[in-house]
Amino acid sequence: MWLIMAVDKKEKKAKKLESYETETSEEIARKLYGIAENVVHQIEHKHPPTFTTKVRGLNNVYFDEKNGYIQLGDKQVTRHFLNLGAARKFMQTMEINSKCYEYLQEGKTASIREIYYELKKNIKGTNENIFDAQEESNDVIVDLEHSANTIREKLGLNAEPRGALYGDITLRDLKHKNDEFNCSKLGRGGWSIMSRIEPEEVEIVDVNADFLLVIETSAMYGRLIEEGYAKKNNAILIGTSGQAARGARRLIHRLHYEYDLPVIVFTDGDPYGWYIYSVIKSGSMALAAHSKYLSVPDARYVGMTLTDVEEYGLQNVTEKMKEGDIKRAKELMDYPWFKSKAWQNQLKIAIDKKIRIEQQALANKSLDFVAKKYLPEKIANQKFVEE
Amino acid sequence: MWLIMAVDKKEKKAKKLESYETETSEEIARKLYGIAENVVHQIEHKHPPTFTTKVRGLNNVYFDEKNGYIQLGDKQVTRHFLNLGAARKFMQTMEINSKCYEYLQEGKTASIREIYYELKKNIKGTNENIFDAQEESNDVIVDLEHSANTIREKLGLNAEPRGALYGDITLRDLKHKNDEFNCSKLGRGGWSIMSRIEPEEVEIVDVNADFLLVIETSAMYGRLIEEGYAKKNNAILIGTSGQAARGARRLIHRLHYEYDLPVIVFTDGDPYGWYIYSVIKSGSMALAAHSKYLSVPDARYVGMTLTDVEEYGLQNVTEKMKEGDIKRAKELMDYPWFKSKAWQNQLKIAIDKKIRIEQQALANKSLDFVAKKYLPEKIANQKFVEE
Repeated sequence: MWLIMAVDKKEKKAKKLESYETETSEEIARKLYGIAENVVHQIEHKHPPTFTTKVRGLNNVYFDEKNGYIQLGDKQVTRHFLNLGAARKFMQTMEINSKCYEYLQEGKTASIREIYYELKKNIKGTNENIFDAQEESNDVIVDLEHSANTIREKLGLNAEPRGALYGDITLRDLKHKNDEFNCSKLGRGGWSIMSRIEPEEVEIVDVNADFLLVIETSAMYGRLIEEGYAKKNNAILIGTSGQAARGARRLIHRLHYEYDLPVIVFTDGDPYGWYIYSVIKSGSMALAAHSKYLSVPDARYVGMTLTDVEEYGLQNVTEKMKEGDIKRAKELMDYPWFKSKAWQNQLKIAIDKKIRIEQQALANKSLDFVAKKYLPEKIANQKFVEE
Repeated sequence: MWLIMAVDKKEKKAKKLESYETETSEEIARKLYGIAENVVHQIEHKHPPTFTTKVRGLNNVYFDEKNGYIQLGDKQVTRHFLNLGAARKFMQTMEINSKCYEYLQEGKTASIREIYYELKKNIKGTNENIFDAQEESNDVIVDLEHSANTIREKLGLNAEPRGALYGDITLRDLKHKNDEFNCSKLGRGGWSIMSRIEPEEVEIVDVNADFLLVIETSAMYGRLIEEGYAKKNNAILIGTSGQAARGARRLIHRLHYEYDLPVIVFTDGDPYGWYIYSVIKSGSMALAAHSKYLSVPDARYVGMTLTDVEEYGLQNVTEKMKEGDIKRAKELMDYPWFKSKAWQNQLKIAIDKKIRIEQQALANKSLDFVAKKYLPEKIANQKFVEE
């Protein structure tokens, strides 16, 4: 059972990390070296070189009921260098492999746009480019993640950062002078979450909180800071500014697993907001292989809900849903992780009444209503949407 | 003449702020009170109530050559309460005025979405809402800014925050426990720039740098931090993540005027990036009245330029411009602040060759090329696009 306990001792102690979480750059680099070595070995033994990765796409994705998150299946695909259609991709994979190996050796990182540009050059002795479009390199990066059974962050690659962190949590950046800072002492802005939150790089030194509240909009994140919500409720706040970036998801994941911090998600009451929640909770189809690094199946959803509208008298401040939103609501109804009676009810109201409700609509009651009444009441009474 | 001096003493001392910059909440509140008082006075003396603000739109906007920024002209418009077409807007203006007065009295702030939701309610004794759509309240907010001759931040209103700050600069949040923090000690993420950077709320305590580099993309901001660029070059870095948000612009403005910090802008080499630069430098037409708070006419542009392509051998990593980009380049050619020979040349190359060049394309040379060679060389030799 999921409970927020008024723990006597607020300071949470870090748990031991799972072994895949603590793989070092050296270990990952050895994996990449192994992949290349295997190709060399095949060539030396006059075998046609092959490279094995996982099948992607919907026919190898499933919802893992036991773990509570989306998973990639076991289907594998083997690429043959001596197949005309596969040769180019094979070459590209080896180039990306070699580049990532170099990053790990040198302690460098690169955005996926940068690695594309680094390798957008002629293959020696030809007029052909290694890569001509970023889609090609992105594609190969996913192959390599699957082959090495890891996430791109551990290959030295960065995603676009977005989101901010606020509250009584102390971080240490092990790759930047061991900077140590407490995120309740950075004014009302908070810390700008980096693209990389890997344990080898960022240590969570201390957490003094009962739960983590993940907030969709920057404006609501700012509102809760202004109202002193975090301190009064012993909460850590993460503002995701829309869909949570990979860095923010890694941070949420780690706070939950390393510090037993319950995760509560607070978004707009519409299919877009609910999907933000579901990605934090159960992962996404595009990143099905990485749910164990990114998802938090125990995350709970506090609001906004369409049943809030009546309960809190918000009838005057709902917004009309657009056709696209309604279509999206219908899609969500079919996802296994939205199959509970309570979620089906929310989606049905959305589709029937064609309404949505924003977080900021709570200002209709008063600016501090969300911090003084809505969140404290709903969280204390565990009025989460039931799964 | 514009020079970056290797100053002996790096620590910059704050200058006295302009008087309009240091207007207190009390002073602004008195202005709002005065506007309302004037209406009451008119009613008491049986005059039809009126409210005066500035004419907006292109016919009252001009480029102020002397100051080097876009300005709103002096044309005024008077709204009459007893005019059927103006009565509703008059009422709305008084409501927003009263709400902002309340925020200032109580030391609260609200997003423009929140003030809209707060006032989306019935006018007492009627079935009519004060506001039905956010466009209405946004419009009235601009009127009030013009009437009170100030910016919305000083009325207690927030814009969406975006952007991050890194480097040897110490800030103090006067509205949050006087938190004091140095932005070179927050790991590689840096400080998440708030929506509000007003002198009454955020004090710039100390700046230890020779210049401020404003960077369009988060990825490039991250790259320069990883390369140790800020420390080696005594620079403060601001990553705007696209068009600079109002909070980021206020911070850039204040760093320039309070600490004499030269501002250098580094964006993608395309009309979108160049426009980001021009908004930082000369303001925008939409915010023409507020250039004195937001712009930095002395800002210089370091890159990317289309002449860089040849100079640095980046022919292989340009991107094709889309039709919309080409149209935008043609528009920029007509703006007075892009009339220099050098800018016209850049725009002409863009239109003729239909190419653009991204910041991250410099990775084609090597990941550290931008930090070790491109920026240091261009800045040392003052190879800015001439105005």
